[in-house]
Amino acid sequence: MLEELKKEVYQANLDLVRHGLVILTWGNVSAIDRKTNLVVIKPSGVSYESMKVEDMVVVDLDGNVVDGTLRPSSDTPTHLAIYKAFAEVGAVVHTHSTYATAWAQACLSIPNLGTTHSDTFHHAVPCTAEMSTEQISRAYEAETGTVIAEAFEGMNPMHTPAVLVAHHGPFTWGKSAKEAVQNAVILEEVARMTSITVALNPTVQMNEDLVEKHYNRKHGANAYYGQIKK
Amino acid sequence: MLEELKKEVYQANLDLVRHGLVILTWGNVSAIDRKTNLVVIKPSGVSYESMKVEDMVVVDLDGNVVDGTLRPSSDTPTHLAIYKAFAEVGAVVHTHSTYATAWAQACLSIPNLGTTHSDTFHHAVPCTAEMSTEQISRAYEAETGTVIAEAFEGMNPMHTPAVLVAHHGPFTWGKSAKEAVQNAVILEEVARMTSITVALNPTVQMNEDLVEKHYNRKHGANAYYGQIKK
Amino acid sequence: MLEELKKEVYQANLDLVRHGLVILTWGNVSAIDRKTNLVVIKPSGVSYESMKVEDMVVVDLDGNVVDGTLRPSSDTPTHLAIYKAFAEVGAVVHTHSTYATAWAQACLSIPNLGTTHSDTFHHAVPCTAEMSTEQISRAYEAETGTVIAEAFEGMNPMHTPAVLVAHHGPFTWGKSAKEAVQNAVILEEVARMTSITVALNPTVQMNEDLVEKHYNRKHGANAYYGQIKK
Amino acid sequence: MLEELKKEVYQANLDLVRHGLVILTWGNVSAIDRKTNLVVIKPSGVSYESMKVEDMVVVDLDGNVVDGTLRPSSDTPTHLAIYKAFAEVGAVVHTHSTYATAWAQACLSIPNLGTTHSDTFHHAVPCTAEMSTEQISRAYEAETGTVIAEAFEGMNPMHTPAVLVAHHGPFTWGKSAKEAVQNAVILEEVARMTSITVALNPTVQMNEDLVEKHYNRKHGANAYYGQIKK
Repeated sequence: MLEELKKEVYQANLDLVRHGLVILTWGNVSAIDRKTNLVVIKPSGVSYESMKVEDMVVVDLDGNVVDGTLRPSSDTPTHLAIYKAFAEVGAVVHTHSTYATAWAQACLSIPNLGTTHSDTFHHAVPCTAEMSTEQISRAYEAETGTVIAEAFEGMNPMHTPAVLVAHHGPFTWGKSAKEAVQNAVILEEVARMTSITVALNPTVQMNEDLVEKHYNRKHGANAYYGQIKK
Repeated sequence: MLEELKKEVYQANLDLVRHGLVILTWGNVSAIDRKTNLVVIKPSGVSYESMKVEDMVVVDLDGNVVDGTLRPSSDTPTHLAIYKAFAEVGAVVHTHSTYATAWAQACLSIPNLGTTHSDTFHHAVPCTAEMSTEQISRAYEAETGTVIAEAFEGMNPMHTPAVLVAHHGPFTWGKSAKEAVQNAVILEEVARMTSITVALNPTVQMNEDLVEKHYNRKHGANAYYGQIKK
Repeated sequence: MLEELKKEVYQANLDLVRHGLVILTWGNVSAIDRKTNLVVIKPSGVSYESMKVEDMVVVDLDGNVVDGTLRPSSDTPTHLAIYKAFAEVGAVVHTHSTYATAWAQACLSIPNLGTTHSDTFHHAVPCTAEMSTEQISRAYEAETGTVIAEAFEGMNPMHTPAVLVAHHGPFTWGKSAKEAVQNAVILEEVARMTSITVALNPTVQMNEDLVEKHYNRKHGANAYYGQIKK
Repeated sequence: MLEELKKEVYQANLDLVRHGLVILTWGNVSAIDRKTNLVVIKPSGVSYESMKVEDMVVVDLDGNVVDGTLRPSSDTPTHLAIYKAFAEVGAVVHTHSTYATAWAQACLSIPNLGTTHSDTFHHAVPCTAEMSTEQISRAYEAETGTVIAEAFEGMNPMHTPAVLVAHHGPFTWGKSAKEAVQNAVILEEVARMTSITVALNPTVQMNEDLVEKHYNRKHGANAYYGQIKK
């Protein structure tokens, strides 16, 4: 079942380690097959060294395991909430990468202070609201998805494909597992750069025109970055 | 004598180097056999490259060498004090890992500001009191154990398996040498993340409910993280 | 066409990765043949792993492609503006290296606070003015060259072969691609060192005599650093 | 001439690279033969990759080359001044390692805030006075030795075998080239740790008794760290 997607998700999980974004078992990648609404996700608490392609777990959008012998990641309800809230998302990545997690722990959005940020994330990477006691006690991982969706009200999640969950850490997404992992790499680098920037100059801000220019030269209707897709 | 435990302690010492937690000879691991109350520990000042399994030293809880030709780590009395004070501890790790040591030098406990922390350490990782002139001159390494035990008054040391000794550095522990080393890896990452967090937002605090949720989803009676142990 | 220069530019692009200055496709090197005024530059958005020598693009100083099947780097107009403004420049490097980019995002010049800086960069590494809305909308990459040239009014660009483009990142240059890459390596290290310096002592300044001494012992008329060139 | 010492100095220079203390050609090691008062030192501006044992240069204490075909390091007069001022020094290391250089650029001594420091450096690692215009113009590298010697007035240079030259960078020393390199490794780690410590707690200080305890358990008359030397 979904053998190609399992391979992609497996490889993407290993790529998190290769890029230095996770230690121990602190990260997970999933991808959705939008035709069947089935999601392939990393099993919970399994080490990256021992993990195999066939260990990937398939769940439906209600979280029922439909293929696989292991339990899915404990963060599965958050992944599912993102797929339900954001219809264009094809894959989701969660890590505890150092600098992105530090911003999340600080309960601060990462402001857009440079073109490195604008090239990938159109706006500030939002930090969610802190969850209420009621939300935490109810269905914690699903409610994590709720605060993520709320953080994007009025924003296009595909234009700023990353979020910081307050006191927890980053989630990123993309059309494919590969793109979602790349966004996780970029987020960590942007989080690091911007922490150094605000230490050097706490009040600096960037001209909105420059944001638009850089975002659009890569992603706009008249984008001219990279090679022409044939 | 205790050949299996010697192998585990030897391997755990090398793992400290592999994880980037120690340079030169700045770290040591021990483990206790609770049936005989004998402790296997790294020899003092021996380089990790030249060290062999048979160099591990066996001491009793009074610090007498009962097996081995080398002197045990100069930190042995601290390890022994931890075994005597905390009955469930199976292994102890001491390092001078960069960020955890910086917090120790700053004489500050590491506050619990995120789920990365809560997943492993239930509460703030305490920093001990600074030792008095009398304590330092008396039996310094054993008194280090005394201030560690005092820092855990009213706390369960197995729920927050790490401490910072003021002006010195971290000790971590666990059921096994492997677990104690893993806790040292996590402590260093948490110390790093949290130093970045407090630079970004010096006054941030975390909701106690979120602490409980994360600690208990991994370690509570109804834990649901990871695979079911058969 | 320009086969030797293509090899140099290709190798210099890979060296950016080897020195840890770029991730993904975030950097580019060009070099100019001053006899023909043709410039060899990296293609846009091509990964370093898959890139070949023959992928290098040759453009004239107006930006017309005269050799090569791929589109040149989207930063080409900036490279060309530098070659036109600074007659002695033989090669240009652009990266988003972490610390240099953080200073650029902070809109701050890197002050000359030590001999590591003075050995290569005679003065502070200037940060350009922020571009106006008009400049951004007109011909953004070429205008980037304009603000770079303006930042060097009254300064010798060969004595301080680096600039920070506000909210964007660093450009460095040199007589050859190899020298321009080396200057990018030094700039990143100087940016890192100096960010730590100003955190430790925000008001420190350096004696101008020491700047002159170090710059001139390497680059002055009576330079005595290194071996005598035969 | 001095073949053994040349090998040691050659190896020690390569060890600086291996330990991540130098990039490009930014570091040098020398060692003295106290019987003949001849000093073996790295040649100036030669890359570590291409350097050979036979490239090491031998100079007398007045700086005259007595063996070797290359020019000695431009920092040679500073090395010689250290050998003349501190009679027990057997080898000298100079680097531009990141954190130690940042403290030097900040014109600040590294305070002794922890046992990692005290285990090797008895007191704060002093930063020299800034040189006067006259000193800089006279005989800059030799005057660097003068300000180093002045920084140790009333201190034993073998008990605190490191110094920061204001606005320049660190020099360390030891009985042998190996020990001097090890002190350079420790200095960089201590500089890094302490920069993090003072960011976390700018006013922290350490009890003098703890300094004495740690320094003496390793270096005092009744030292008990490490194995007994036979």
